[in-house]
Amino acid sequence: MVDYVVFGRGCFDQLDEILAPRRKDGAPMVFLLDHYFQNDTALKSRIPIRGNDILVDADVTHEPKTTYIDELANMLKGKFGQVSGVIGIGGGSAMDLAKAVSIMMTNPGNAHDYQGWDLVKNPAAYKAGIPTLSGTGAEVSRTTVLTGPTRKLGMNSDFTPFDQVVLDPALIKGAPVNQRFYTGMDCFIHCVESLQGTFINQFSRSYGEKAQDLCEEVFLHKDNWDDDSDEKLMMASFAGGMSIAYSQVGVAHAVSYGLSYLLGTKHGIGNCIVFNHLQDYYPEGVKIFHKMVEKNNIHIPEGITKGLSDEQFDKMIDVSLGMAPLWENALGADWKSIMTREKLRALYEKL
Amino acid sequence: MVDYVVFGRGCFDQLDEILAPRRKDGAPMVFLLDHYFQNDTALKSRIPIRGNDILVDADVTHEPKTTYIDELANMLKGKFGQVSGVIGIGGGSAMDLAKAVSIMMTNPGNAHDYQGWDLVKNPAAYKAGIPTLSGTGAEVSRTTVLTGPTRKLGMNSDFTPFDQVVLDPALIKGAPVNQRFYTGMDCFIHCVESLQGTFINQFSRSYGEKAQDLCEEVFLHKDNWDDDSDEKLMMASFAGGMSIAYSQVGVAHAVSYGLSYLLGTKHGIGNCIVFNHLQDYYPEGVKIFHKMVEKNNIHIPEGITKGLSDEQFDKMIDVSLGMAPLWENALGADWKSIMTREKLRALYEKL
Repeated sequence: MVDYVVFGRGCFDQLDEILAPRRKDGAPMVFLLDHYFQNDTALKSRIPIRGNDILVDADVTHEPKTTYIDELANMLKGKFGQVSGVIGIGGGSAMDLAKAVSIMMTNPGNAHDYQGWDLVKNPAAYKAGIPTLSGTGAEVSRTTVLTGPTRKLGMNSDFTPFDQVVLDPALIKGAPVNQRFYTGMDCFIHCVESLQGTFINQFSRSYGEKAQDLCEEVFLHKDNWDDDSDEKLMMASFAGGMSIAYSQVGVAHAVSYGLSYLLGTKHGIGNCIVFNHLQDYYPEGVKIFHKMVEKNNIHIPEGITKGLSDEQFDKMIDVSLGMAPLWENALGADWKSIMTREKLRALYEKL
Repeated sequence: MVDYVVFGRGCFDQLDEILAPRRKDGAPMVFLLDHYFQNDTALKSRIPIRGNDILVDADVTHEPKTTYIDELANMLKGKFGQVSGVIGIGGGSAMDLAKAVSIMMTNPGNAHDYQGWDLVKNPAAYKAGIPTLSGTGAEVSRTTVLTGPTRKLGMNSDFTPFDQVVLDPALIKGAPVNQRFYTGMDCFIHCVESLQGTFINQFSRSYGEKAQDLCEEVFLHKDNWDDDSDEKLMMASFAGGMSIAYSQVGVAHAVSYGLSYLLGTKHGIGNCIVFNHLQDYYPEGVKIFHKMVEKNNIHIPEGITKGLSDEQFDKMIDVSLGMAPLWENALGADWKSIMTREKLRALYEKL
């Protein structure tokens, strides 16, 4: 689990104090700031740059690639040898970048060597996560999802979670309405998938139920968005992330990984595009989802697989069916006979 | 926060594997087992005693005293110099003993030197908590409550939480019905107190609401006790403990600390004795509490302060009014003008 969690409106301004005891002589703190904020001088001026610290406008046009992780880590190693810590500020991609770069500061080889389970050998450099979007749960999870040369797969390890998380609801206040919805739905969807899955236990159920309740409260039961909504969505994301500890996601995630791999569709919107058509698998959840889409007046893209070649469909199907634990959680041990290539192709064609 | 949490029926049998990487040459693991289990050879045979490990039947007749902590720590230092870790197995007292002893293995002086906030200087020896009763939240809290020569007060520090918690719902299955209720109510009562308090934020609210829901489910909405009840109560305790991170308890805890100091009343039952009479402060919560008492056919002692001297009442009032943050959380900044000595005396006389 994450060692230290600070939660509260305005707590971002405690960052200098939080980092002070972690600073090592001559080794900088590295702030990876989501490039969404590259012109936000107000936010940048609040980041506690000291000594040789550096602030990197992190390119999250695409979800994190192993090659970008290697590039950043090699730049830092070349310039400083070692760092005091890596601080990710932004959405889920910025969180994942910070986790992966901090791991690569202390582990040899390339980032793609560590895609999988428990492959990381050495404790990472100190790392902290400061979300400016809520829903992915990346702030508490034991993984950092990366697109490598052959697959999209996380570095799942005991060395992956952040040492420190700073949860300041004021930081998510300005998020664009559509993006906030897509990312919030990542939380809602993984709750539905884990609560209806076959792997669930009471630990994950407690967290998942609370996270789902909070999502429904802000996206369905409240009539306008206010500070309280930001606080609840931030906690939904945290609880949703914790719920994954003893559960697994399901059909929406498995299918959207294929989209993401082939088309670069981002995780939040990709899950929405898929979940929109999953009434056969999650009837209750999809009904609530449709209500939330309507109430929040959100556009969910359609027709994104139109015109793809057979070869491209096959690639998505391969990637998706490769996610065995997700399918097993969703459909049981016998999932292969239920989710055939033909059935999955038909589903992809609907999107 | 706790670094590692394992949850699941039967996970106690993973303890050997969990402890293996923490063992240091020649330094034993010390198992502090609640003396409730002193004749439970079946449970004892499942504890992974290796090399010079020792199993101590921990005397929890009274809640942990600083003198008992010093005695245990000095015995261990004399015998082994250092230990690989301290593992507490039992109720809240066994958890608190393990936390405090592990702190005293690496910090000079006496346990009462560290009663307070952030006084512990050195990281504790490795420590793990394995609850056999659920409700106190001691398995996740940042404190270990001790009775010292002059006060009952916790060692609240970043070095206090466990490194590892093992949550096995099968271990709480055999708890005596009354004890299970009293300890479960500790959770319910601290949720009511924190949710109605003035210090609450959304982090603590989310956890507190879930914990309270789970308590009500097992003690009020279900008609018999089964494995699912154990799992839910175990999670209620965990979530309730997390909720305390950003909140505070209130009137019941402040008053019951006085009982405990003077009469040695244990925490769970003490809270029940007090909360039973707090309808003026927590009308909704007390109503639900009365229903749960009735449904579960529990005896809540009455008349325990009968015949006490003025001096004894004064001592309880002194101890209770010393808990300023609890009163402020419950009654606001102006609490001193609300909770006068006379009013508190009248409350103690009712118990």
